[in-house]
Amino acid sequence: MATLRKQYVVNRPLYSEDSFAQDHEKIYRRRKTLLDHVKQYLTCDSKRVKNTALSLLPIVGWMRIYRVKEWLLGDVVSGISTGLVAIMQGLAFSLLASLPPSYGLYTAFFPVLTYFFLGTSRHISVGSFPVLSLMVGAVVIRLVPTNGPPANITGFEGLTQDQQRVLVASSVTFLMGIFQLGMGLLQVGFVVMYLSDTLVSGFTTAAAVHILVSQLKFVLGLVVPGISGPLAIIYTLEEIFVQITSTNICDLVTSIVIMVVVFIVKEINDRYKAKLPVPIPIEVIMTVIACGVSYGFNFEEKFQVDVVGKMVSGYESPIAPNVEIFKESAVEAFPIAIVGFAVAFSVAKVYSIKNDYTIDGNQELIAFGVSNIFGATFRSFAASTALSRTAIQESSGGKTQIAGLISALMAMIVTVALGFLLEPLQTSVLGALVIVNLKGMLMQVRDVPYLWRRDKPDCIVWLGTCVGAILLGLDLGLAVGLGVELLTVIFRAQFPRCSVLANIPGTDLYRDCKDYLHMYEPKGVRIFRIPSPIFFANIEFFRDKLAEAVGFNPLRVLRKRNKALRKIKKLLKKNDERIIEKGVGGLFHQTSVDSEDKSNMEDLDLPTDFKDLPVRIDWNAELPANISVPRVELHSLILDFAAVSFLDISALKGLKTMLKEFIRIEVDVYIIACDVYILEKLHSCMFFDDEIQTSMFFPTLHDAVLHVLQKHKDQSRLLADTKL
Amino acid sequence: MATLRKQYVVNRPLYSEDSFAQDHEKIYRRRKTLLDHVKQYLTCDSKRVKNTALSLLPIVGWMRIYRVKEWLLGDVVSGISTGLVAIMQGLAFSLLASLPPSYGLYTAFFPVLTYFFLGTSRHISVGSFPVLSLMVGAVVIRLVPTNGPPANITGFEGLTQDQQRVLVASSVTFLMGIFQLGMGLLQVGFVVMYLSDTLVSGFTTAAAVHILVSQLKFVLGLVVPGISGPLAIIYTLEEIFVQITSTNICDLVTSIVIMVVVFIVKEINDRYKAKLPVPIPIEVIMTVIACGVSYGFNFEEKFQVDVVGKMVSGYESPIAPNVEIFKESAVEAFPIAIVGFAVAFSVAKVYSIKNDYTIDGNQELIAFGVSNIFGATFRSFAASTALSRTAIQESSGGKTQIAGLISALMAMIVTVALGFLLEPLQTSVLGALVIVNLKGMLMQVRDVPYLWRRDKPDCIVWLGTCVGAILLGLDLGLAVGLGVELLTVIFRAQFPRCSVLANIPGTDLYRDCKDYLHMYEPKGVRIFRIPSPIFFANIEFFRDKLAEAVGFNPLRVLRKRNKALRKIKKLLKKNDERIIEKGVGGLFHQTSVDSEDKSNMEDLDLPTDFKDLPVRIDWNAELPANISVPRVELHSLILDFAAVSFLDISALKGLKTMLKEFIRIEVDVYIIACDVYILEKLHSCMFFDDEIQTSMFFPTLHDAVLHVLQKHKDQSRLLADTKL
Repeated sequence: MATLRKQYVVNRPLYSEDSFAQDHEKIYRRRKTLLDHVKQYLTCDSKRVKNTALSLLPIVGWMRIYRVKEWLLGDVVSGISTGLVAIMQGLAFSLLASLPPSYGLYTAFFPVLTYFFLGTSRHISVGSFPVLSLMVGAVVIRLVPTNGPPANITGFEGLTQDQQRVLVASSVTFLMGIFQLGMGLLQVGFVVMYLSDTLVSGFTTAAAVHILVSQLKFVLGLVVPGISGPLAIIYTLEEIFVQITSTNICDLVTSIVIMVVVFIVKEINDRYKAKLPVPIPIEVIMTVIACGVSYGFNFEEKFQVDVVGKMVSGYESPIAPNVEIFKESAVEAFPIAIVGFAVAFSVAKVYSIKNDYTIDGNQELIAFGVSNIFGATFRSFAASTALSRTAIQESSGGKTQIAGLISALMAMIVTVALGFLLEPLQTSVLGALVIVNLKGMLMQVRDVPYLWRRDKPDCIVWLGTCVGAILLGLDLGLAVGLGVELLTVIFRAQFPRCSVLANIPGTDLYRDCKDYLHMYEPKGVRIFRIPSPIFFANIEFFRDKLAEAVGFNPLRVLRKRNKALRKIKKLLKKNDERIIEKGVGGLFHQTSVDSEDKSNMEDLDLPTDFKDLPVRIDWNAELPANISVPRVELHSLILDFAAVSFLDISALKGLKTMLKEFIRIEVDVYIIACDVYILEKLHSCMFFDDEIQTSMFFPTLHDAVLHVLQKHKDQSRLLADTKL
Repeated sequence: MATLRKQYVVNRPLYSEDSFAQDHEKIYRRRKTLLDHVKQYLTCDSKRVKNTALSLLPIVGWMRIYRVKEWLLGDVVSGISTGLVAIMQGLAFSLLASLPPSYGLYTAFFPVLTYFFLGTSRHISVGSFPVLSLMVGAVVIRLVPTNGPPANITGFEGLTQDQQRVLVASSVTFLMGIFQLGMGLLQVGFVVMYLSDTLVSGFTTAAAVHILVSQLKFVLGLVVPGISGPLAIIYTLEEIFVQITSTNICDLVTSIVIMVVVFIVKEINDRYKAKLPVPIPIEVIMTVIACGVSYGFNFEEKFQVDVVGKMVSGYESPIAPNVEIFKESAVEAFPIAIVGFAVAFSVAKVYSIKNDYTIDGNQELIAFGVSNIFGATFRSFAASTALSRTAIQESSGGKTQIAGLISALMAMIVTVALGFLLEPLQTSVLGALVIVNLKGMLMQVRDVPYLWRRDKPDCIVWLGTCVGAILLGLDLGLAVGLGVELLTVIFRAQFPRCSVLANIPGTDLYRDCKDYLHMYEPKGVRIFRIPSPIFFANIEFFRDKLAEAVGFNPLRVLRKRNKALRKIKKLLKKNDERIIEKGVGGLFHQTSVDSEDKSNMEDLDLPTDFKDLPVRIDWNAELPANISVPRVELHSLILDFAAVSFLDISALKGLKTMLKEFIRIEVDVYIIACDVYILEKLHSCMFFDDEIQTSMFFPTLHDAVLHVLQKHKDQSRLLADTKL
């Protein structure tokens, strides 16, 4: 059993951080200052210029390695299948944005053109994304409501309601593009880190609920005014239930049939994924059938159903965005920009890892920024990517953005030539297709019990984001979710479980003294572990916990001792005076001492001052004249800093006060396993003075304990020696 | 030199966490669940009821120990001196709230009455506080602007402008009281922890700038409409500079004289603090003189100066708050409630520590909540405490709130009987007194260079809060500051400095391998220190840093190996087939392998599967048929978790993936010094499976390194043995 019982043998000098530094010289490493970083950032040589240029045009990179024979066929096939889906989704999602369906086709065309040149992902399918479409739709509805007058904006005169809406949507998209481009140029793509999986899951679930509610009116064939702002979802549902008796039965039946068929076929697609060469394009099939049926039986006139209607044939001239709309919608455009980028980036990352190439977050921001600005001038609305579409593009063999380009061409063909075929299509069919695709997003609700069991704060983030986004709207909800998420991080660091450590006998290991039966806690020594970073929000917490762990409040003890000292000095003086100058002195001194008592409250916090006294007072012994001072059995306090990963200024000040209080009541304080950077910071922030010295730092807990034991053994031996 | 060279000797079995757990049985400690906490919170016995009742009426506590002989005289003297100041400040701060001066006297009276019964602090002087007054003033000005019609609120009909303003102020104060009371009852007093010293310093500096600007019009004798909202300060300054030619010279001269005299006397007070029995009450003296001069020379008619004018004599009947104003001002009342409480609590804490009694944050919230609600019904505005006034109350001998009660009585006397004496007082005098008292708050700007040198993030918090609060207004600025402050905490934890550790020869200590010259890094072993908590925002960062530290991306290596393995299998099969069934097999197999290549991308991430192979492949040897795979020299990776104080779910998932990637390319991973609570969490979150096992945990770095060395020594010996 030799392998089981390997030995751990160490024999080395006992080190404090000071003596360690003496024995082992540290290499001087110059830290880069902020200035150095800026300089480095601004230096410019030909190589960097070339790299930057290349990174701004990723197409050059992948075009050079394009293998025409192997990849082109896959790209074309994939482009065609993706194109069909993109057209369907474009039509359907434009309903979410409260725009005429043809603009969805624009969104499947224009942004792709620029992304082709600028994007670093080779697999994502650029175009409309339901959550984004809905967020744009919220602004559209707010500025151009269905009933009632539009907002008071200069550019609106002489435009029809739809034209006003297109202007709003394209302006918001333009602004979103500016935000994305700006963030890309400022290299702040890392902000998406803050959108954790939990947050995104809660947010998209809320979005799915919003999408569901927004499509109900199409499915039921009702005319419900779009409502925006906090609690809009409640008001919309109320409106729907009020009107529910006027449901269009033809729309409802069509929708249910479509939903059931699509749902079943999708399940089949899923189940026989391995056996099917290509998933059945059930949505396209159903749309074609629905178009035919609606046209054949003239549903529009017979049942008064709402149809797609006159499609704009071909493209319209570019429009300039409206600055007044910028002002009105800036607060909403920012979360749209963030969400759009975050979705695209996370999808792109999945496929870049899968296919072993790198994507660049900041370049993606630039690509989407430019694409949205470009698209917006041609009246398309917010573009990102949809996971479903990208999955089709990649699984059907797409290797590069050439597939994206081909899908865009398909959308162009429909816009230019085949749009009229879609005119008899019921909007309820589009609504039903949107709803049936929500299954995955809504199923994320199953995360909740999982998270609750595993990690309550994460669960609260999910619920906070989801409920916030449902009730307050997606933009405010995202802000609330982010706030809650950041607060959970603070909370985790703020209220950690502190513990008092003790030695496991026969080892150099220390554990929580409540966790094991046989522990060795040296007399007069307390080891306190601080298990988290220290900052403004928890320094007071640690102070309280430490007082609890040692069993007394050091400041109070110090005050009591100083008060006692005054009394003793007074007693001594009185005794002296009684001998030397009996008479006048008594009254005089009484008053002077009284005034001292009043004015020198602050003095009580100073170190006990033994001068003028013939002997040093042993505070734990019986004191004369009924003066009582709390007894302190502790002579050493060891703070385990191993888990303290940072300190801020408030913590530093608080720590300094705390240590001083202990040192002033003659408790030695030791800090162990302190991070080198924190130690450097303490030095640079003037942490050390006469009372707080660098000799208090030890590399390990055991070093400190051995030092303490040694010191107090020496002292007690010294005491014993003098007694003899 | 025996003491210098003490030895550190340890001889114990080598422990992994598993073998340690075998040797040392842990005591089972049942953790309190959420339910237990709720139960405990809701249990009720006679003692708890009594304590709760007592804590709700702190007056009972201190009245029982009231020492009439010793304390009463001090309280009375202190009450009178504080009362004088409270009257002056009440008049002056009501200008900040844009209210007639008499309401400042109300604020010095009503809230004190309830605080007397409910407050736990014995020393603070309850009443108006400049920053709060200004925040209330912002709402007042927004709803009842000087020029232009007031907001469309039902209760405003038939009221004069001043009456409307009083209604707004008292409603906001009422709402603020409700917020405070609510927070107190919900026991959430701990939120003030988030207002760090840095934040408060930046915020109050911004408030001082606002106060300064708001008083300029009084000092210059101009009529400037109050402006509220973001950038209000810019517009106000613009307005003042436009009008500057119509400055009232009498007001200006009076103000300058007052400011210079008060400033000098205050400096004298400060310098000779020890020698003066009581600070010279220069503000009171100057006010009396100014009153007399203004009355004597009839300034009002002669120079058209603005005077206090007709004071309301006596008290008016209580008013009900207006619910419409609640709705309009809820967003502003909340920060007012927070700021008011935070100021009072921090001041109260200073004096409670100094005088050795405890205050209770939640009870203070209740006390201020009730006081503000009570005060608001009697038309007083937001009450908290002013540091200057409290300092006077305490230093002039006040021991309990009896002093506060007496100062309230002084305010009452002026309201009821002596108000007419103040009528000729110029408002510019009050403005000058406010401005001259801003010195301390404005001098906080000196914190900036100090913070910049010490701690850049803290400096950014200060600047963010201050600039935000100056430009956006105090309420929005506070929110911005809080956001920045919380983000700095996240940032500190998010981008820590990771390091690769190595052994200091001859010891069990490990340090950053770049820091020392002579270090021992065992061959094939990498020790990576994670110096901060791991959570959603930094798991990717650590992943990148770890790949950088080991010099390769484990996932990529795994993929390359799996691809190589496929090729090798193919080669082997071909060889077999060439022998067994030459002919048809070749074509058949070619296709089947191709389809495999396409469909099984995901398989590349699975562990390398050596079955069907005659030998285990040594990946670092030369491979046949030009198959090349990156070499991995590493056999063990040790992660130092000592500073990982918490993990969230995202981090847990990310960590699991990361570890699996390493384990699958045959790198042993060890985690050392992992916190017990984190280990428990890993267990409860199903972190462990066939690949990731508990045997990877070791208590110390040295244990793990010894284990690794032993293991690989055994292996190489085993290899050597078989060779022989």
